[in-house]
Amino acid sequence: MLNFVIKFSTNGNCQTVEITDKVSAELQKSGLSSGILTVFVPGSTGAIATMEYEPGLVEDTEKYFKDLVKEKNAYKHDINCKTANASSHLRATLMGPSLTIPFENSKMQLGTWQQITFIEFDNRSRDREIIIKIIGQ
Amino acid sequence: MLNFVIKFSTNGNCQTVEITDKVSAELQKSGLSSGILTVFVPGSTGAIATMEYEPGLVEDTEKYFKDLVKEKNAYKHDINCKTANASSHLRATLMGPSLTIPFENSKMQLGTWQQITFIEFDNRSRDREIIIKIIGQ
Amino acid sequence: MLNFVIKFSTNGNCQTVEITDKVSAELQKSGLSSGILTVFVPGSTGAIATMEYEPGLVEDTEKYFKDLVKEKNAYKHDINCKTANASSHLRATLMGPSLTIPFENSKMQLGTWQQITFIEFDNRSRDREIIIKIIGQ
Repeated sequence: MLNFVIKFSTNGNCQTVEITDKVSAELQKSGLSSGILTVFVPGSTGAIATMEYEPGLVEDTEKYFKDLVKEKNAYKHDINCKTANASSHLRATLMGPSLTIPFENSKMQLGTWQQITFIEFDNRSRDREIIIKIIGQ
Repeated sequence: MLNFVIKFSTNGNCQTVEITDKVSAELQKSGLSSGILTVFVPGSTGAIATMEYEPGLVEDTEKYFKDLVKEKNAYKHDINCKTANASSHLRATLMGPSLTIPFENSKMQLGTWQQITFIEFDNRSRDREIIIKIIGQ
Repeated sequence: MLNFVIKFSTNGNCQTVEITDKVSAELQKSGLSSGILTVFVPGSTGAIATMEYEPGLVEDTEKYFKDLVKEKNAYKHDINCKTANASSHLRATLMGPSLTIPFENSKMQLGTWQQITFIEFDNRSRDREIIIKIIGQ
């Protein structure tokens, strides 16, 4: 069981950041060949997803989340908390903070057009630390 | 590999129940310091999520799911089954029954404002048993 | 840590394929009694979910995804790529490619009315290979 952290900065507002290479680099460091790895966001306004990281689709995805969960909608959280980021929280809860990915021969078993992304749902720029937990042999 | 069960009762209709302390107590019992734990709902009308458990946001979340999946919408399942809880199933499928969380130094690596919740999507009160599977060293 | 692959064909367009028995057969092959298994889609237009596999609810679920993410919506990806399947990608990203399920006494700890499904979000028939990774004792 190995624990790694990857770090990067984001701009906020549904920005989709590709992190496949960063995750893969930690898998190489682990020296393990077969197992599972869990990518986890320690926070309530970001999510881990997979997608084809094609520029048009990245735009579509960001627009999609903005349409699905309105930024302002008389949210109670926006009255209670000065962060006023209820929509960030709702989007993150919907998507989830955790993704478990299998690997074999020291390579993640992703599809050809499948990349790992962090989606920054917070309404401001953030410094993020994402946990990568690797188990295997 | 250790298997635990946590039990509680719910009221139904998108009630959001915080279970962080219950999960944490099982992790303490395991005696493990580094690993992953999977929280799993054995059922098709509940889900596991993480969120900031702030009362306003809890209300926003419950309202959000009721808006996203209408309670009544000429569902075939509501004709076929007397439970008439198609919307409960759709909400649960969308959110998912499983969440994997890493831990280190015997503590879950959650964010400061990130709690674990069970969302009761069924349309009635239920007695729930949630499975906690812990693997590590 | 054991690696299995299950294979099947799909018709596309939100078709929901029940795979519980196929996953269970791999678990039997593993010979393990207690642990977790991860079901993973290596691709960006399919998802793994659990649901009650009742025919009416299957229809409701397929309709639900078609309503939630419109097939055509001036997507940039549909201009950039001749596959024109942006809606397939958005639905798959929303649902996620990975599900981790605990097992005990060599049986998955699913609820009585909870089956595992693959949802084919692509807009055409596909031959699918789904990865089953099993860890335990």
